[in-house]
Amino acid sequence: MAVKRVGNQTVILQKPPIILESASIAGKKEGEGPLADYFDMILEDDLFGEKTWEKAESRLIREVLLKVIDKACLSYSDINYVISGDLLNQCIAASFGVRESQIPFFGVYGACSTMAESISLGSMIIDGGFADHIVCMTSSHFCSAEKQFRFPLEMGSQRPPTAQWTVTGAGAVLLSSDISGIGITKITTGYIADKGIKDANNMGAAMAPATAATIVAHFKDTGLQPDYYDMIITGDLGKFGGELCCSMVENEGYKIKDRYKDCGVLIYDLEKQDVACGGSGCGCSAVVLTSYLYQLLKEGFIKRILFVATGALLSTTSSQQGESILGIAHAVSVERIGI
Amino acid sequence: MAVKRVGNQTVILQKPPIILESASIAGKKEGEGPLADYFDMILEDDLFGEKTWEKAESRLIREVLLKVIDKACLSYSDINYVISGDLLNQCIAASFGVRESQIPFFGVYGACSTMAESISLGSMIIDGGFADHIVCMTSSHFCSAEKQFRFPLEMGSQRPPTAQWTVTGAGAVLLSSDISGIGITKITTGYIADKGIKDANNMGAAMAPATAATIVAHFKDTGLQPDYYDMIITGDLGKFGGELCCSMVENEGYKIKDRYKDCGVLIYDLEKQDVACGGSGCGCSAVVLTSYLYQLLKEGFIKRILFVATGALLSTTSSQQGESILGIAHAVSVERIGI
Repeated sequence: MAVKRVGNQTVILQKPPIILESASIAGKKEGEGPLADYFDMILEDDLFGEKTWEKAESRLIREVLLKVIDKACLSYSDINYVISGDLLNQCIAASFGVRESQIPFFGVYGACSTMAESISLGSMIIDGGFADHIVCMTSSHFCSAEKQFRFPLEMGSQRPPTAQWTVTGAGAVLLSSDISGIGITKITTGYIADKGIKDANNMGAAMAPATAATIVAHFKDTGLQPDYYDMIITGDLGKFGGELCCSMVENEGYKIKDRYKDCGVLIYDLEKQDVACGGSGCGCSAVVLTSYLYQLLKEGFIKRILFVATGALLSTTSSQQGESILGIAHAVSVERIGI
Repeated sequence: MAVKRVGNQTVILQKPPIILESASIAGKKEGEGPLADYFDMILEDDLFGEKTWEKAESRLIREVLLKVIDKACLSYSDINYVISGDLLNQCIAASFGVRESQIPFFGVYGACSTMAESISLGSMIIDGGFADHIVCMTSSHFCSAEKQFRFPLEMGSQRPPTAQWTVTGAGAVLLSSDISGIGITKITTGYIADKGIKDANNMGAAMAPATAATIVAHFKDTGLQPDYYDMIITGDLGKFGGELCCSMVENEGYKIKDRYKDCGVLIYDLEKQDVACGGSGCGCSAVVLTSYLYQLLKEGFIKRILFVATGALLSTTSSQQGESILGIAHAVSVERIGI
């Protein structure tokens, strides 16, 4: 059998699963940002016709699932698995979002690393020959996240410069066993890192060490250098977290600054949109991957990216125990194959 | 390539991953029940030397991970992935439990279906050739669960006869690419079912329809009859939920009553231990599988079981939206192979 594992954290896919289609739905504020033209749909109102923010977030999942299946000219019954999760307690956006579908469901929780986690699992399942079509998706919602993790919105509490703005949006990819297109070629799975950060308004710092560790592991495991990729893009480290991560990676001997981007920085106009150091939330990397990045790859403007979704495992329950915010990051190589 | 998928929900593993070792830790009350002799460790006190119940639950995960690795004479660095999740908000028992390990981590959320979900994913990853050793594990804790999902323990609120008692405990299996032993041969992945149940003290009813659907799908997909298995065992439907599930399966033409068991009924003495209709929680099916069932299989008293972990995706956040409790169940065939 061909070598499927390299190093401690990386696997090489032998028949890289293809992103057959992607779909993205973005909130109103995200629709006023620089990536607006790339989204499949922009909400006029973040309640999305529902009575609560949580129900709106579930609807984001339901609609983005329908959209990605529809774009691929398939139906629910063609999908072997859905792999999804979100930030809400017990991942209710995902579970309520898929409840009508009757698609076999694997719930995952990786905080904002969810998009890369679900793609990692989905890709191994397809490459292993167990499925032909898997939808991997996630969501976040500014209002439901602030309510659950920080302060009531009605308080209008001030945000420090290290704060991030939870993206309202959902992104889905439909992975398939096709042989050409935009493929998932390598997966580097991260481990949990704890650097003792306790400030829910400084999540970039909580995630940066785990992210740097995953990026460095990817290069060590594969023997590749950063210039193999046209872009190395993290999920939602934000401006400060991104700079910290770059420095940490460069300290290990890998120069990535010239091709480094962060979805949280790309999705908003940081000068004008009052989002402090950028976007966050599971939806952040998910909507950027499924809109802007997928489009760039499809049109050939870039050929290979290392997509590193970054999670801060923030929980009020663990904060109440005096615990810190754990970080984790998973990387997937997304490349043009045979096109 | 051999047929790996049969029907809509089932996959057949070509080189069935082997449960190289299992480990179980049970709480004090569980240690006073009928399965006491099978547990690797029984807590003297449910705080387990920690200051809070949540920290005690994280410690259950940490210790059961150490124990299963130790029993297999391996170390952290031999494990390719940990797949784990739990009931606490943002799955903090799992994430804090593994934080020192530096093992690549996939967080999952399937409520009490977690043990079968993690084994399903782990088995496909190993059979796909991506890993040699994966630990799949989960936990629950009576006190942290009651506090999060129902009422403060100090209230001493009365429990109706349909209530279940969340198991304090954790179970882990170490899956390997070995070729003989107790193997995972087939996986039937469930979908989310919603029958409108809203009572957090009647979770058996919330889970029974999803469970029956998964069991029926398993037989339809594989063409097997119930007598293929020595035991068909659900996770935590409890007494009433189990009876309901059996009837629903039998209505579809599969007679399972003579070989049907439920982990939630086995783990306590329902007459004497004041647990209403039985145990529940992710830990319930996890500790029964990793102690009693594994032992029975290893010693050859039984040769094949269908293990169906059953999840009620209970969340206070969704209950606050007026939503019902969703159910899901995943089945894995566990069989003696080459021994």
